[in-house]
Amino acid sequence: MFRAETEFVRWLKRLSRRQGAGVRLGIGDDAAVVELRHGHELILKSDLSIEGVHFLRNLHPPRAVGHRALARSLSDIAAMGGTPRYALISLAISQQTSRTWLDEFYAGVLALARRNALSVVGGDTAIVPDRISIDVVIAGEIAREKMIRRSGARPGDQLFVSGRLGISALGLHRLKLKASVRGRGKTLDAAAHAHLYPEPRLGVGRYLSENNLATALIDVSDGLSTDLGHLCDASGVGARVWAERLPIADDLTTRERRTLDPLSLALHGGEDYELLFTVPKHRVFRLPRRVHGVPLHWIGETRSARGLVLVLPGGHEMALQSRGYDHFNK
Amino acid sequence: MFRAETEFVRWLKRLSRRQGAGVRLGIGDDAAVVELRHGHELILKSDLSIEGVHFLRNLHPPRAVGHRALARSLSDIAAMGGTPRYALISLAISQQTSRTWLDEFYAGVLALARRNALSVVGGDTAIVPDRISIDVVIAGEIAREKMIRRSGARPGDQLFVSGRLGISALGLHRLKLKASVRGRGKTLDAAAHAHLYPEPRLGVGRYLSENNLATALIDVSDGLSTDLGHLCDASGVGARVWAERLPIADDLTTRERRTLDPLSLALHGGEDYELLFTVPKHRVFRLPRRVHGVPLHWIGETRSARGLVLVLPGGHEMALQSRGYDHFNK
Repeated sequence: MFRAETEFVRWLKRLSRRQGAGVRLGIGDDAAVVELRHGHELILKSDLSIEGVHFLRNLHPPRAVGHRALARSLSDIAAMGGTPRYALISLAISQQTSRTWLDEFYAGVLALARRNALSVVGGDTAIVPDRISIDVVIAGEIAREKMIRRSGARPGDQLFVSGRLGISALGLHRLKLKASVRGRGKTLDAAAHAHLYPEPRLGVGRYLSENNLATALIDVSDGLSTDLGHLCDASGVGARVWAERLPIADDLTTRERRTLDPLSLALHGGEDYELLFTVPKHRVFRLPRRVHGVPLHWIGETRSARGLVLVLPGGHEMALQSRGYDHFNK
Repeated sequence: MFRAETEFVRWLKRLSRRQGAGVRLGIGDDAAVVELRHGHELILKSDLSIEGVHFLRNLHPPRAVGHRALARSLSDIAAMGGTPRYALISLAISQQTSRTWLDEFYAGVLALARRNALSVVGGDTAIVPDRISIDVVIAGEIAREKMIRRSGARPGDQLFVSGRLGISALGLHRLKLKASVRGRGKTLDAAAHAHLYPEPRLGVGRYLSENNLATALIDVSDGLSTDLGHLCDASGVGARVWAERLPIADDLTTRERRTLDPLSLALHGGEDYELLFTVPKHRVFRLPRRVHGVPLHWIGETRSARGLVLVLPGGHEMALQSRGYDHFNK
């Protein structure tokens, strides 16, 4: 570990010295000073990642902890249609946290940051006796009048989701199983990789915003049933979702199918960080099937009757309850 | 406590609904969207406040915890010469945290925010099994080319400090004594009040920036000896400080003087949140004795020889070691 805070700050400063454009003053002064492009508004988001709550020491390697902590906040910027520019990392670690852990953690943060032209410009550090906790703050920007709220959906708008749903939850299941069976090989399958290194859909969000395609937009971080509920509540609408059209995880083993249901994973599994959005009927023809290689799937539509309805194969309808993640009820 | 996260977010939204200018989208969407004034740069700072590290449950009432958590970050904005505009509060609490604690915590945050025309626009929340931890993020602004770094001091610049030094440490001492002697009355003396409700020197910082008075500026959060060391290291200079000129706490009781030394408190006591700055000799005549009622004190000067020197009454000089707060060595 570091002998003094100044040594840690010097290390951080070196790590993040290859900064992007717009950084007037980075790590090492009282605060960071940065520039926004003219005609842009500032997007601000902070997200906590706490050991034992958002990640587990034995399941999540430090590189993934860093990646995921940043991805959570980036996904919120994507959900506004914005572009991330600057990040602050507040980090409470214990004296037992190793240099290797810190190296790997920042490697995870910085690799994702660089791929998205994001500069880490500051943060804070503290030593605590127990769990590691991280707060990632993103300052992003969006052209004036271009932000997409979650509250703009109108009855009859068509519902779309990017990527696949339930993969992260499946990956977590597989990681837990692997951890309980020691030495079972170190290769990560696609689902485990999706859980550890989710890719925030910044390109998709920006595409929707720049082309005025979406009336409402939210990221699926707490599970589709929960986040669709948030979008509908904010917009004052309800929604019908077709189970058959959900892009579910379809590569479960026979053994996994005994305990896991792909549809439930897709509806209630969290941390997919896909984008869920509504498009007015008359603009649907303008929506491509893929944006930057990410597939977009039609899954249903909003309607004036409140509440969420799941349409099952065969046409039977059932009420869809929000059963995703709530930090106050675990 | 709250039954669900949505209930908590609704409560927060209500609490912070009287928002200042520039807030395009506050609490309740994926992220906040705000505006900066044209021709201004963005200042970003985050500061952790952790139970058992930065505050103690039995010494710091929740209103003071909120006030102090925000004051720490505001002081960093003052130390750039900037104006705070928006805040995010990330808060990890336990199921045992009471509604009253939360009410009082936010009352402390919001009272200080309102006095400084600052809008709380978002944050994050999590439930943890143990200690409360808070990360306060401030987005401020400063006119282009007006920021004051800590690195701009030149040999021969004159050293000034605002307010008084060591008061917060004295206040903490008195609060600890009071806590150990139960039921000893509830009135707070001035030092205890200064510790619990420090006033960030935003007006002073802004005055220095707008009038191009300071070459370097830092806030005294970890103690004068430590923060003067930071300013000198960043500027590549040394400094001489006259002990007799330090604005020390002079109202210690005879009993307190047996264990406490006002000079040591002023040199090494932390959390005063005063401003320490350097003014070139030829501009000193333009510096007023007070700014917005806050006194400014000449305490010494910088010089090319590195290291800090304390000039004692009578002219004897001694090396001044940085002995203030280091989060990595408690």
